[in-house]
Amino acid sequence: MNILIVSAHPDPASLTNALSGVAAEQLREEGHEVQVCDLYAADWKAVVDRSDFPALPPSERLRVAVASGEAYKTGTLTRDVIDEQAKLLWADALILAFPLWWFSMPAILKGWIDRVYAFGFAYGVGEHSERRWGDRYGEGRLAGKRAMLIVTAGGWEPHYGPRGVNGPIDDLLFPINHGVLYYPGYDVLPPFVTYRADRMDEAGFKETSEALRDRMRTLFTETPIPYRQQNGGDYSIPAMELRSEAVDPKLVGFAAHVRHGL
Amino acid sequence: MNILIVSAHPDPASLTNALSGVAAEQLREEGHEVQVCDLYAADWKAVVDRSDFPALPPSERLRVAVASGEAYKTGTLTRDVIDEQAKLLWADALILAFPLWWFSMPAILKGWIDRVYAFGFAYGVGEHSERRWGDRYGEGRLAGKRAMLIVTAGGWEPHYGPRGVNGPIDDLLFPINHGVLYYPGYDVLPPFVTYRADRMDEAGFKETSEALRDRMRTLFTETPIPYRQQNGGDYSIPAMELRSEAVDPKLVGFAAHVRHGL
Repeated sequence: MNILIVSAHPDPASLTNALSGVAAEQLREEGHEVQVCDLYAADWKAVVDRSDFPALPPSERLRVAVASGEAYKTGTLTRDVIDEQAKLLWADALILAFPLWWFSMPAILKGWIDRVYAFGFAYGVGEHSERRWGDRYGEGRLAGKRAMLIVTAGGWEPHYGPRGVNGPIDDLLFPINHGVLYYPGYDVLPPFVTYRADRMDEAGFKETSEALRDRMRTLFTETPIPYRQQNGGDYSIPAMELRSEAVDPKLVGFAAHVRHGL
Repeated sequence: MNILIVSAHPDPASLTNALSGVAAEQLREEGHEVQVCDLYAADWKAVVDRSDFPALPPSERLRVAVASGEAYKTGTLTRDVIDEQAKLLWADALILAFPLWWFSMPAILKGWIDRVYAFGFAYGVGEHSERRWGDRYGEGRLAGKRAMLIVTAGGWEPHYGPRGVNGPIDDLLFPINHGVLYYPGYDVLPPFVTYRADRMDEAGFKETSEALRDRMRTLFTETPIPYRQQNGGDYSIPAMELRSEAVDPKLVGFAAHVRHGL
């Protein structure tokens, strides 16, 4: 199988980049094809702006979704974005590796999403009407592929627990796992999260690497997070709310979008 | 009072920038001092890298938190970051205005946070020991000030409701409201969120502007989101988990960090 690893840390010797390397090595040992995209090494342009849409007439306002859709349709996106989209189509699995900065991804990786996820490619896909709100959340251009996060966090694990002060890690990552990965169709695997990343010693790194290798061995067999498909009957259309006939009306929040008891 | 508005949309005529302008105008009418920081107009550097720490010896690894703390302490951060920190100290209130891209802020704004929020300034503040985990979540350098988000979203409001397919807007914004704003000490006001931003007509804009003006009139009197202070007795130290004596043990997730029934 083909795997794309996108790594986003400015220090080549960082834990993030080391873990990306371990993942790539293990996947190659399993016989897979791996591409590692080191966004810092590639000097990735992080910011969406007018220069992303060279065919947009100077007289026209930059409406980002419209410009993105038009450029995608006409093949006039910039070369760097087109190349990354091709990698996403090539890859059977996508791994995003990053340090948790301010409870989300570093700007360079957010900018990779903002730019590569064009309208018509990652959103605005499929029929949009009163009967159907597009192919998203389990459907879309990247359906049938898998995705997974490798996250390094500076804080302690209990701080990210169910009652930890930062909020539960699965909820903090929901906007990424559900909103960025599941949205265009990926089956999303549970994240691989490392805590106290700044204080890791040699023994800790060895143990963490072994755990990550185990996860890489089961990348294509592990059970994904059972998010509910948008068009699978659990949501009303076009309001896109959980139907009380399908999902206990008492359930609200992120957890309600995960099928339990599977 | 002094207010800093940070606006993050590439189109000068966007709804985001228009609302930033409405907010600034109303606040000035109230007699306040307002600075608007248009990150795109300023060509803000979004990506944390080695060039942010010119005093870091080339032989040394870039450990971001360490380098950030050292540069902050020795006054060797870059001019653009130092200027923004001064604005944050000047401002009695901070407003972040942005389009919701992939359920978070655009990369340029994330990079403003990543770079301006230096170690020793926005985190790593106060005593860190077994008895106290720093001044954060309600305490810190920016305590006593207020902050608020102005968010424009493309989707429909029910899609962001308690049972909407995207997840509830307050939970999607928790990593920002709680993790970025409350963390260094801000009192956080409920966000001002506009839906179907791409389809807004003249009448809709007028109505939205009026609602925003109302919010600006009460910027310094409105009740903030009642998040729990880290060092207020609700959390154990150093595990930083909600104490069962203080908070119903059945409560978990983001909502548990908000004091209810006030």
